[in-house]
Amino acid sequence: MAPKPIKGINPFRGQDILSVKQFDRENLRYLFGLAEEMRIIVERVGHSNLLQGKVMASLFYEPSTRTSSSFIAAMSRLGGAVIPINEVVYSSVTKGESLPDTVRTLESYADVIVLRHPEVGSAAVAAHYCEKPIINAGDGVGEHPTQALLDLFTIEEDHNRVDGLSVAMVGDLKYGRTVHSLTRLLSLYNVKFYFVSPEILRMPPELIEEVKQKGLEYEELEDVSQVIDKADVLYVTRVQKERFTDLAQYDAVKDYYVITPEIMKRAKQTMTVMHPLPRVGEISYAVDADPRASYFRQMKNGMYVRMALLTAVLGRA
Amino acid sequence: MAPKPIKGINPFRGQDILSVKQFDRENLRYLFGLAEEMRIIVERVGHSNLLQGKVMASLFYEPSTRTSSSFIAAMSRLGGAVIPINEVVYSSVTKGESLPDTVRTLESYADVIVLRHPEVGSAAVAAHYCEKPIINAGDGVGEHPTQALLDLFTIEEDHNRVDGLSVAMVGDLKYGRTVHSLTRLLSLYNVKFYFVSPEILRMPPELIEEVKQKGLEYEELEDVSQVIDKADVLYVTRVQKERFTDLAQYDAVKDYYVITPEIMKRAKQTMTVMHPLPRVGEISYAVDADPRASYFRQMKNGMYVRMALLTAVLGRA
Amino acid sequence: MAPKPIKGINPFRGQDILSVKQFDRENLRYLFGLAEEMRIIVERVGHSNLLQGKVMASLFYEPSTRTSSSFIAAMSRLGGAVIPINEVVYSSVTKGESLPDTVRTLESYADVIVLRHPEVGSAAVAAHYCEKPIINAGDGVGEHPTQALLDLFTIEEDHNRVDGLSVAMVGDLKYGRTVHSLTRLLSLYNVKFYFVSPEILRMPPELIEEVKQKGLEYEELEDVSQVIDKADVLYVTRVQKERFTDLAQYDAVKDYYVITPEIMKRAKQTMTVMHPLPRVGEISYAVDADPRASYFRQMKNGMYVRMALLTAVLGRA
Repeated sequence: MAPKPIKGINPFRGQDILSVKQFDRENLRYLFGLAEEMRIIVERVGHSNLLQGKVMASLFYEPSTRTSSSFIAAMSRLGGAVIPINEVVYSSVTKGESLPDTVRTLESYADVIVLRHPEVGSAAVAAHYCEKPIINAGDGVGEHPTQALLDLFTIEEDHNRVDGLSVAMVGDLKYGRTVHSLTRLLSLYNVKFYFVSPEILRMPPELIEEVKQKGLEYEELEDVSQVIDKADVLYVTRVQKERFTDLAQYDAVKDYYVITPEIMKRAKQTMTVMHPLPRVGEISYAVDADPRASYFRQMKNGMYVRMALLTAVLGRA
Repeated sequence: MAPKPIKGINPFRGQDILSVKQFDRENLRYLFGLAEEMRIIVERVGHSNLLQGKVMASLFYEPSTRTSSSFIAAMSRLGGAVIPINEVVYSSVTKGESLPDTVRTLESYADVIVLRHPEVGSAAVAAHYCEKPIINAGDGVGEHPTQALLDLFTIEEDHNRVDGLSVAMVGDLKYGRTVHSLTRLLSLYNVKFYFVSPEILRMPPELIEEVKQKGLEYEELEDVSQVIDKADVLYVTRVQKERFTDLAQYDAVKDYYVITPEIMKRAKQTMTVMHPLPRVGEISYAVDADPRASYFRQMKNGMYVRMALLTAVLGRA
Repeated sequence: MAPKPIKGINPFRGQDILSVKQFDRENLRYLFGLAEEMRIIVERVGHSNLLQGKVMASLFYEPSTRTSSSFIAAMSRLGGAVIPINEVVYSSVTKGESLPDTVRTLESYADVIVLRHPEVGSAAVAAHYCEKPIINAGDGVGEHPTQALLDLFTIEEDHNRVDGLSVAMVGDLKYGRTVHSLTRLLSLYNVKFYFVSPEILRMPPELIEEVKQKGLEYEELEDVSQVIDKADVLYVTRVQKERFTDLAQYDAVKDYYVITPEIMKRAKQTMTVMHPLPRVGEISYAVDADPRASYFRQMKNGMYVRMALLTAVLGRA
């Protein structure tokens, strides 16, 4: 259903994947064409040997089962091998080793390094010292580009286009890393944004400014019910109680951001509900059976996008 | 030495493996035939590519080196890949994710999920939400079906039959999950049971009832020395000091359940000693050299049985 | 650049690798020839299938990201599979299982066991109970033979010979396991030693005695600047503040053991700087760009040497 892949020069060969800012419509088209091929390979054959003999180091300074599992599955389905490093805190780091020394060691063994680290900018630091490609799998409140890429790929797969869609971002828009990155990627297209959040968790002014400068339409609202009949995509994130100093304020608004079968009745038949997961009550389980629930499709798409990225940066695309 | 495999329809294709209750003499015969083939593959060739391109998620909510290593080895020797997830407690779960969401995420990446979880019934819950096969690798005090299967396979391999054997279950028969499951499987055959335990750790009445209803003979005793010359199989488990409120009671009986070279002298030349391991003193190391000691053969057989199960549920048998 | 491999009988087939004492010039020549072939395979092709179908258990009772990653990469690049066991402390061991039982279980699943354990002599104990090859990946303050082997291989690769070199060992020579093992290996060759350390961290008398008995020259000194213009190899290790009861003493000498671009100016153009890593300040980052800095080459060589060892002990050489 996605656009045909454009055969052409692989723009990612040997590159680090650090930020959504590296992407434009052209290289996204290349990447998503490749991800689409990966989907077909997995669904029809199950696997390929494109990355046979390649080794990926999966270096997670903080745990993330979902992201690390997705990368390990991606590498495995391409015939590659994985060095899983999850217990970093107990090891070299406690002996005081610096991130540059750790990645320089790992590039002695591996062909690509997937890095999850709690500090903003750590992926860029690692990439500076490392000759082999670094893929940023989340650096604190900074970036998590592969999440934003899989989100955008899912929108395109579900709707067969991105231009012309109305996208509602729901929940914690102030601190939500995934929401910020996805907004940046979507701003490459002609979309209308609905930013739906509690007053204290509104989209940061600099992101609003970016959207404005692209000449894109947006509205800021406080209640999902105000946009449920207009949105083509409902991107839901969690509103954490801990963000509120005044709990009365939390109680007053919390139900505005919970997606239930009732509210889904008012949505378009073609609307899709997305969520980066894990969820904790913000989408009721009763919605899962609705074909518009796209969050498990998102997971599958995450593997395809990561298969595409690994193949591309390793020069096998 | 095992019976020739019956070639026929694979009854496990796409199935979950949740409980020993799923097994009857016919599908056990199919499974053990396949396990026997796996033994030959490993001993003669070392490995095969039967599961090439397949991915197994190994989801362990509590650690079990032995079981997880056995599954990883099984998958590896069949050419498949593994997503090892051992630190679940530190990850998604601490973010509050439910088991159904976790398994639905993992089935996006993997073809089969091996689940170890501390709560009874968790494997059935996981299977309810997951379309891909779930293999229960232990759910609390509930079931651990692959352990019981490898135990039974070992008995058949060692004795070339199951019907007609006298099996002594020794140790903690009240809380011993492996003993309960194996007793249920053995009850499909014509065996005589000796249940040897301290008074306070006797076999639960409902299991005794099941054995009776099958019309099988059994005796309940307190001392291994009473059955050592009669048993064909001695299945030993640990008697934990902690189970006793009265330590004098523990001291009075503890030596009844320790297997030494001395007591082995009175056993049949064809008797086999089994243990699910780990052991802590209940079988002396001096017994290891005795060819009747079967507990390390059990380990190998565990890998063969898991290779057979993975091949069968993934439809490659 | 290394000497041509001597084709001949593989002296390591089925052997345990427990200690540097197993090595002589002849079997080192065999091993390094094989390691050199591994370097070529990785640099030209990336991988091979020499160990396809083989399974390595990586049993780490204490974490060591560097060593375990190196072994996993080595096995992966040879087409073999890995059972990674890192959380041993939380698992069987807490249930009280002995090391012999653990390795006998693992040899049921795997073809070779790589063992890291905090207790001296543990690798020998494991090897005693285990029929499959054990590779000692560090047993406490005992041995870490693969580290010494990769160190020696690096010296030979860098200098195209070992005989005739002057090797300065710098830092904590009293407690440094790697320094002791490397000194033993180097004593098989005609080298001159400079032992450079604080007074309280001098090389143990028994090692000095071994060097003397081989008829090799050595000098003991307190300051790197005294040998920097004479050494062909500068092997640097960390001087830990914690070793000093008198901190004034530490402050007085600490700068004697820090390698900076300034001190490198006085070194030979062909001198190489080595370090087992991780480093914490004892080699300044500014030295990294110097082609004489060999510590990242050491890492790569570690993988080649481990590939050679695995291939050799598994009988595929």
